[in-house]
Amino acid sequence: MSKRYEALRQHLRELAALNSALGLLGWDQETMMPPRAAAARADELSLLSRLAHERATAPELGELLSDCEADEALNTDAATAANLREIRHDYDKARKLPTEFVAEFSQTTSHALEAWKAARSDSDFSTFRPWLEKLLGLARRKAEYFGVPEGGELYDALLDEFEPGMTADVVESTFAPLREALVPLIDAIGRKPEPDDGPCKVEVPIETQKAFNREILELIGFDLEAGRLDVSTHPFSSGIAPGDTRITSRYTPAGFAEALSSTMHEAGHGMYEQGLPKSEHWGEPLGESLGLGIHESQSRMWENQVGRSREFWTWLEPRLAAATGDAFAAYDAEALYRAANIVRPNLIRVESDEATYNLHVMLRFDLERAMLRGDLAVADLPGAWDERIENDLGLDVPDAARGCLQDIHWSMGAIGYFPTYTLGTLYSAQFWDAILVDLPDLPERIGRGEFAELLGWLRSRIHQRGRQLPAEALCVELTGRPLDHRPFMDYLKTKLGGIYGLEG
Amino acid sequence: MSKRYEALRQHLRELAALNSALGLLGWDQETMMPPRAAAARADELSLLSRLAHERATAPELGELLSDCEADEALNTDAATAANLREIRHDYDKARKLPTEFVAEFSQTTSHALEAWKAARSDSDFSTFRPWLEKLLGLARRKAEYFGVPEGGELYDALLDEFEPGMTADVVESTFAPLREALVPLIDAIGRKPEPDDGPCKVEVPIETQKAFNREILELIGFDLEAGRLDVSTHPFSSGIAPGDTRITSRYTPAGFAEALSSTMHEAGHGMYEQGLPKSEHWGEPLGESLGLGIHESQSRMWENQVGRSREFWTWLEPRLAAATGDAFAAYDAEALYRAANIVRPNLIRVESDEATYNLHVMLRFDLERAMLRGDLAVADLPGAWDERIENDLGLDVPDAARGCLQDIHWSMGAIGYFPTYTLGTLYSAQFWDAILVDLPDLPERIGRGEFAELLGWLRSRIHQRGRQLPAEALCVELTGRPLDHRPFMDYLKTKLGGIYGLEG
Repeated sequence: MSKRYEALRQHLRELAALNSALGLLGWDQETMMPPRAAAARADELSLLSRLAHERATAPELGELLSDCEADEALNTDAATAANLREIRHDYDKARKLPTEFVAEFSQTTSHALEAWKAARSDSDFSTFRPWLEKLLGLARRKAEYFGVPEGGELYDALLDEFEPGMTADVVESTFAPLREALVPLIDAIGRKPEPDDGPCKVEVPIETQKAFNREILELIGFDLEAGRLDVSTHPFSSGIAPGDTRITSRYTPAGFAEALSSTMHEAGHGMYEQGLPKSEHWGEPLGESLGLGIHESQSRMWENQVGRSREFWTWLEPRLAAATGDAFAAYDAEALYRAANIVRPNLIRVESDEATYNLHVMLRFDLERAMLRGDLAVADLPGAWDERIENDLGLDVPDAARGCLQDIHWSMGAIGYFPTYTLGTLYSAQFWDAILVDLPDLPERIGRGEFAELLGWLRSRIHQRGRQLPAEALCVELTGRPLDHRPFMDYLKTKLGGIYGLEG
Repeated sequence: MSKRYEALRQHLRELAALNSALGLLGWDQETMMPPRAAAARADELSLLSRLAHERATAPELGELLSDCEADEALNTDAATAANLREIRHDYDKARKLPTEFVAEFSQTTSHALEAWKAARSDSDFSTFRPWLEKLLGLARRKAEYFGVPEGGELYDALLDEFEPGMTADVVESTFAPLREALVPLIDAIGRKPEPDDGPCKVEVPIETQKAFNREILELIGFDLEAGRLDVSTHPFSSGIAPGDTRITSRYTPAGFAEALSSTMHEAGHGMYEQGLPKSEHWGEPLGESLGLGIHESQSRMWENQVGRSREFWTWLEPRLAAATGDAFAAYDAEALYRAANIVRPNLIRVESDEATYNLHVMLRFDLERAMLRGDLAVADLPGAWDERIENDLGLDVPDAARGCLQDIHWSMGAIGYFPTYTLGTLYSAQFWDAILVDLPDLPERIGRGEFAELLGWLRSRIHQRGRQLPAEALCVELTGRPLDHRPFMDYLKTKLGGIYGLEG
């Protein structure tokens, strides 16, 4: 191995250590930090962001990279060549952002996050509005620094950060047929009687829930020696460092099912992080996750294809009884399964069922794209939001907290992030079909609590590959074709058709 | 205010933000970090230590400082002059250490800490021995970089980091008369019957203890909106940032009194940190604590002068009953007070009573000084330790975990730290006498749970002063004389004399 390549890797490991510190500061901010520490934390995050950006754009990194690119011996190894390709991508992209902009972005989002928390708690959009305007201004500047691709739009430059190579047009042309297929399905379900929602109302003490979620988390394969499960207002996962992947969930006494599905969702993210070859390749693309679409495919798969399957609830039922006494005694596994799959429009995205969830994502994609283009003024966001919720879901939005203030993303400056939720949902269904070809008895295995084969498949086919292949190429390799909404719709129609007794 | 001075302060604030990140990483390492993250954490700490050191020694900091020192207008303000004096002290001291040494020191102590944890858990000194040898080597190099003061020894250079200006000779000449006074007192007590230790054996569920410690913590004045109380194997406090002071305690069902006194102790440290003017002077000496002796005076005062007083237990008794039901019903406040003050040699320093505690400190001071001098080989440490425990406390050391492996300090490279515990103990008694002159009814107030006057006194006379005065000068200002063992011995003889019925 060339000395220059080793020096390049060492530089990236140091950058990774800085990014890990940032990751821990961010995790702590959402889980542990005392309220009065917010201002100092903003300074810390901003400073470390600046230092990390300096290191990510350092001329000596560029020199090491150029030398390695010119070294033919290195490029004969496919993995090393892929590593260099992705290091180049990241370096060139990072070099487009001035360091002062990165520090300003970090400082602003830290304060905006606090402003959003207060605004959401008071359900008062007006106090968040100036921050959202600031954040949109920063997002526009960021997109301009990155540069708009030929024939593209500002949004593309932001989306690319979360889903490399993706464009707003492709998202639009993926979402349109999905919407066309979803709406009639949701309408048809709306005309059928709803399964008994009794299980969704059962109250379980929060401490019992915490212990139960922890137990299930370990049983499905999340390594608690190399991670944690904590509580935060907004569940998230964070791959902080090798051996350190942290996820959160949230609990209310009557929110047993929501907490469990949050835990399953974040566990999917977390097990992806734990499966990446970070020990060997910490800070290198070979040890990093692909875009958020693939990340989300892992979380949505564990949440839905696994966690909302009949077999999962069959396995879960006795465990539930052991943990909660007779709380759920009136319901058998079939009733629990049906309740876990009730389709009912919900004001809150993260509490939505698998069908209406995607309408939430489309709404956010359309509105953030319109705001970025300047077609929608920030002041008009609540009205536009509420109208769309009424049109798409038939619901009245009673307040901004349950409307346009519900999500954390914009307050963190993450504009262009939302589409990845639905892209991930589509990936998960398409991957699941491929998995069932290789592991035809997987549902029965899940019914027995055997998750290792599934995790093993994901490890070898996705996790251990790091960023060797771009997402689209990985999808073609795993499933034989590009991303497509039909596997998801087939999965949904089969499952919900069975539960609701729809015509085939 | 001069622009150069503002630039100097800004530089220091950025250094403080880096040190805060280091503080959080360290806190997390002891409280939250999953076990498999240890190796990556070592890298992170080492890198950030290096970056912090680079910033602490940056030539532009030196230039800013020189300019400010030359600015007469700045130096007419006493606080600003003190700030500059202390910034100079820190800068010159930091410049003596090569950055690579700082990174190596951090990396080594991270690994040594893990090795110590394992060695202690297995009670096997042999696995920690090579690490302690390495750490001593590093400590020697550090002392040599700092430079040994005229007529002094290596140990002085290390001690100065924890207690600026202090020397081993002064420690020795302070400890010698203290020892002479302590030993006969402990002997006299040993010939008297012991108070009923029943309260020390009461078992209280850990969750109940956690809630109770939290309640007391808030009632004495620790601000939980600007701090946290968590659990760690080794209780500690950490002033991470403005608005972010975190302390820990540790709980076992039969260790109610130990947990409470750990919490009181760390609360004393924590309230000092919370009382420093960090919002205005974050990262500047004006916003920083004095040496560890003064820090320890605050922790020992809340632990002992407050937390082991008759009045405190009078106030605590009904709260204890409300929190623990009838667990302590057989004991009145007087019995609880007496049990909290039993003098009984203990193998474990942190579980020791106020009298024998200082013999533990002296032992560690003598042994670490001898190792640093080369008079005691690391291999001979367990033997020397056990012999000394036998001589000083009349106890057999059954294993290394309860012997020379019990403390975390050496594994963190903190050689020269231990004396500050006894120095702080002496300061606390001397300050307490001064406080009682100003607040003669303080004991009665404590009996009513009124801690605000005490905290107010400490805030205005000590906390808000930052590093304006050196510790010795502060002591003279507050008490009219230099540090002296007699106020402590008077306090101890009065209290223990009363409990044990000793001749006056």
